[in-house]
Amino acid sequence: MSPVDNGPPRRADARRNRDALLAAAAAVIAEEGPDAPLDRIARRAGIGNATLYRHFPTRRDLLVAVTAGEIDALCARGAALRAERSPGDALFGWLALLCAHTADYRELATALAGDGLGEGSAEFAGWHARLAGTLSELLTAATAAGAVRADTTVADLLALTSGVALAGRDGVDRLLAVVRRGVTPRAGG
Amino acid sequence: MSPVDNGPPRRADARRNRDALLAAAAAVIAEEGPDAPLDRIARRAGIGNATLYRHFPTRRDLLVAVTAGEIDALCARGAALRAERSPGDALFGWLALLCAHTADYRELATALAGDGLGEGSAEFAGWHARLAGTLSELLTAATAAGAVRADTTVADLLALTSGVALAGRDGVDRLLAVVRRGVTPRAGG
Repeated sequence: MSPVDNGPPRRADARRNRDALLAAAAAVIAEEGPDAPLDRIARRAGIGNATLYRHFPTRRDLLVAVTAGEIDALCARGAALRAERSPGDALFGWLALLCAHTADYRELATALAGDGLGEGSAEFAGWHARLAGTLSELLTAATAAGAVRADTTVADLLALTSGVALAGRDGVDRLLAVVRRGVTPRAGG
Repeated sequence: MSPVDNGPPRRADARRNRDALLAAAAAVIAEEGPDAPLDRIARRAGIGNATLYRHFPTRRDLLVAVTAGEIDALCARGAALRAERSPGDALFGWLALLCAHTADYRELATALAGDGLGEGSAEFAGWHARLAGTLSELLTAATAAGAVRADTTVADLLALTSGVALAGRDGVDRLLAVVRRGVTPRAGG
């Protein structure tokens, strides 16, 4: 390859840099919150600050991309859980992931709201709809399998899950077990 | 009674006016939110604006007094429910009242936060502690009666209840039923 033929390889480099920055940003933000210094994110990714700012001109651009990536990953995990586990275990396994996400996301959402991209934004509505869609598929399968009472709705589970997430990570498993017992049909009932 | 002997009767009048203003404020705020016009509250109470401002010089004074009155009433209802109902019914009857309060209180809390009296304030901490104390008494009685699993904590119920309240008034009964099934010991278990 001649040194001036830098089309596809540069695009691949750019893609690799972007992915590395997003992975580093997700890790640093999880540790330090959404106000983490951007140069620490660049250093973690092994990439210069100038390259970071070329990919993500503002902190908001970076936070939006990180959040969108997390939503994508959550929805993909939902599909994987449906393939791997019983319908009831898949549903509650995914709700545990959603609780962890919601705990992380509260700070991100607050940071984004400060940039005019909070719960009222079109981006947020789109993310919420995607998560609700994934939950709907998991719930439909669990209900059809008789693992969950037929009167349970997506909105019910989202409301209870947000309460579980409020309690913090330490209580997630115990509180989700309460919710699961609460929506599991009784034997003979 | 001579017209100049206006000691005790005036104090009784002042008390009556204050109670009428608080009742009117609670009703108007429930209908219109914490930004309701103060003169509408005075009119509802059948009392002049000047008297309202003498009792509550600022909107914040009025909101604090309304909230404190609601907390008093909630704690008193907890004691009454313990006397009237089975321990399990008393606990979940009171959680339903707490959900209604939390739904109303969200707007009040936001309004108070705007005046530097939000969730971080000493007043809020005191109110939270009183509600948690009432819930603790109800939970202890329900657990002792075997109506609730022994591993259920006040923090668990507060977290799940806040999720229930988030879903809005229409879902409260159905979602509290989920929580109740989730914390009720199984027969033989």
